[in-house]
Amino acid sequence: MDKAKIQTLKGFRDFLPKEAKKRQYVIDVLKNVFGSYGFEPLETPALEYEEVLLGKYGEEGDKLMYRFEDLGGRKIAMRYDQTVPLARVVAQYGSAIPMPFKRYQMQSVWRAENPQKGRFREFLQCDADIVGTSSSLADAEVIVLAVKSLQKLGFKKFKVLINDRAIFRSWQLKLELPDEKATLLVRTIDKIKKIGKTQVKELSIKEGFTPEQIEKVFEEMDKSEPTEKIQEISFALKKYGISEQFFEYSPYLARGLDYYTSTIFEIEIEEYTAGSVCGGGRYDNLIGMFLQQTSLPAVGFAFGFDRLIEAMEDLNLFPDNLITTKVLVTIFSSELQAKSIEIASKLRSNGITTELYSDEEAKLDKQIKYADQKGIPYILVIGPNEASKNRVTIRNMQTGEQKTVNQKETLEELKRN
Amino acid sequence: MDKAKIQTLKGFRDFLPKEAKKRQYVIDVLKNVFGSYGFEPLETPALEYEEVLLGKYGEEGDKLMYRFEDLGGRKIAMRYDQTVPLARVVAQYGSAIPMPFKRYQMQSVWRAENPQKGRFREFLQCDADIVGTSSSLADAEVIVLAVKSLQKLGFKKFKVLINDRAIFRSWQLKLELPDEKATLLVRTIDKIKKIGKTQVKELSIKEGFTPEQIEKVFEEMDKSEPTEKIQEISFALKKYGISEQFFEYSPYLARGLDYYTSTIFEIEIEEYTAGSVCGGGRYDNLIGMFLQQTSLPAVGFAFGFDRLIEAMEDLNLFPDNLITTKVLVTIFSSELQAKSIEIASKLRSNGITTELYSDEEAKLDKQIKYADQKGIPYILVIGPNEASKNRVTIRNMQTGEQKTVNQKETLEELKRN
Repeated sequence: MDKAKIQTLKGFRDFLPKEAKKRQYVIDVLKNVFGSYGFEPLETPALEYEEVLLGKYGEEGDKLMYRFEDLGGRKIAMRYDQTVPLARVVAQYGSAIPMPFKRYQMQSVWRAENPQKGRFREFLQCDADIVGTSSSLADAEVIVLAVKSLQKLGFKKFKVLINDRAIFRSWQLKLELPDEKATLLVRTIDKIKKIGKTQVKELSIKEGFTPEQIEKVFEEMDKSEPTEKIQEISFALKKYGISEQFFEYSPYLARGLDYYTSTIFEIEIEEYTAGSVCGGGRYDNLIGMFLQQTSLPAVGFAFGFDRLIEAMEDLNLFPDNLITTKVLVTIFSSELQAKSIEIASKLRSNGITTELYSDEEAKLDKQIKYADQKGIPYILVIGPNEASKNRVTIRNMQTGEQKTVNQKETLEELKRN
Repeated sequence: MDKAKIQTLKGFRDFLPKEAKKRQYVIDVLKNVFGSYGFEPLETPALEYEEVLLGKYGEEGDKLMYRFEDLGGRKIAMRYDQTVPLARVVAQYGSAIPMPFKRYQMQSVWRAENPQKGRFREFLQCDADIVGTSSSLADAEVIVLAVKSLQKLGFKKFKVLINDRAIFRSWQLKLELPDEKATLLVRTIDKIKKIGKTQVKELSIKEGFTPEQIEKVFEEMDKSEPTEKIQEISFALKKYGISEQFFEYSPYLARGLDYYTSTIFEIEIEEYTAGSVCGGGRYDNLIGMFLQQTSLPAVGFAFGFDRLIEAMEDLNLFPDNLITTKVLVTIFSSELQAKSIEIASKLRSNGITTELYSDEEAKLDKQIKYADQKGIPYILVIGPNEASKNRVTIRNMQTGEQKTVNQKETLEELKRN
């Protein structure tokens, strides 16, 4: 084994317990909120026929996708997002899926991005979508779901930026741009927030647009009004009790992915500037690509899980007690291990999260240090003295206080705190 | 899009909501039990340097591993189990991980197996391991953890079969077999439960062993006694309060994987005959392969998740109420949708799992059918009559009973049932 290879691939991460618990916490909160709105879980495979995924995410998607041939010579690709697999599922199972189909999905996706701060080659996506209705109510419902999820995680100040791609079509028509040219321009406009209008203009000129065309586009967007779609969504959001401080019309919002057809939205957290934590929109043609003839409307969003975690850390939103273990039962000696096993069993059957130090040869000091390192708040010691009197010594690791008590008192102490 | 490709790859599965919920239920139960014993979550990447995984699972493992070259020309492989990644993590992070390290891991693994009933190319593994102690207490602890997990899932009759590979070394020495020959023979012996002694004998003869050698091996195993290790584990299990009906010495148990060094065990559920649902053992040399010089003992197990699910279905152990949604709020008309939104919001803020039918154009019949299809127990209708009196009609979907009540009574009704 080459020592140099005892490492993860660039852009891939291990999550040691401390991080893994935070992730688990966020996943559990999201699942609960999604579930409480009637969204149900879906899981799809990590690998799909390449043909299912290719061409659905634009050129860049095809380039960044992990693709290879399996042992049977099949061309396969790794999950790149969860929307295209959702479309494939809807097309494949037909009437076995009641419509509207409200599903959430939380699985890893893989993209061969250039690794840089905050950009990974493997990351978790948390999606929620409604398939089978073009009602603005569905657009509003997914936005409400995202808002409630963020609130449940503890975020207080954030804003949903909403736009409608229909607005882009108005200048596309006026400028008589073919579809590919318009798509190209939209992708560049999407960068305004990052690089500003001036640079977007320069970039677009390099891409073959005239300064006049860009000016015209900016002008059209500046004078644009919320479309009927956006007005309907706003109406529903207010009925849902979402205060207007949480959402606004944002005519420059463009979103990177090609498959969106009308509503698009992103959520920005006020005190977190690394980028939006949620993005979504309506994609009424994607599922139709699998169905060939009929089209099937859909709307949904994905949370950027890593950014959520980072934002929660920045704003200190994780609960203090993510440490699962309440008490470490130490082992005094090989002869006395049976006593420790018995008390650990007793605590566990009383619902107390208990760890038994599973090495009877370790010195007590080492065991105490272990509890300290893991942040376990209590330890129990059962030495010869305690054992002979059927008692245990309980130590509060934070205060250093300790007392020798009977089993009943131990239980009471641990349940109280 | 080739219609034929609207499908999953052979050996890969979608989990639609009904199945996905069952899986989620089992995962949640296991995480809770694991956590209550002080085991902590770990996540590792789906892709690793091929060199990390190659050669760790024997020839068959290398053959079945999904391997390919990434865009940067790196030779990479998909996760094949969770034990080798655990070993890599322990070697990589050193003292940042407190020892003994008790971790659980629940991620997918990929194996290019020949797809057949109950055998998949992508499946979830649920592992729990203790790294850093050779104490029999640790062996007992992981066995207790597996037993308690199964009990928590509702299984009542099952047995842990325990063996010690040291027993194999005794006949290996007597027969003067080199290591590879012994490994080969162990792998064949592992098939006894499936194909019986006679066929194992025939198979071994084909592999170059003499009938006398096989007879001798059988004889040695028949007269073998539990090793000291197994006696220590049995002692600890009893102290843990595990009744003897749950475990037994099983001298023919061999286990497929090469990396086990002493204790090995499997769990069989009495009324489920498709195979063991859990397998594990002690692997004291695997982590050392990454550390080069030092060795680091470890012991643990993996649940066969798909078999667990199947066994739970066979024995009818899933709770009835895995359906998350309590009530569907229908939408009578476009004009009255605001009323439905308001009542849905109210129910949700009162902690009632509520789905709003998100298409105001759908006929009421269609909405009722939808609730029926999804098994949602209650629906609410707010028509012009109800709206004018600020009341709602609530229908129990099972009994067909319905009544028109005010909002307070609606809440009471839904909270009561």
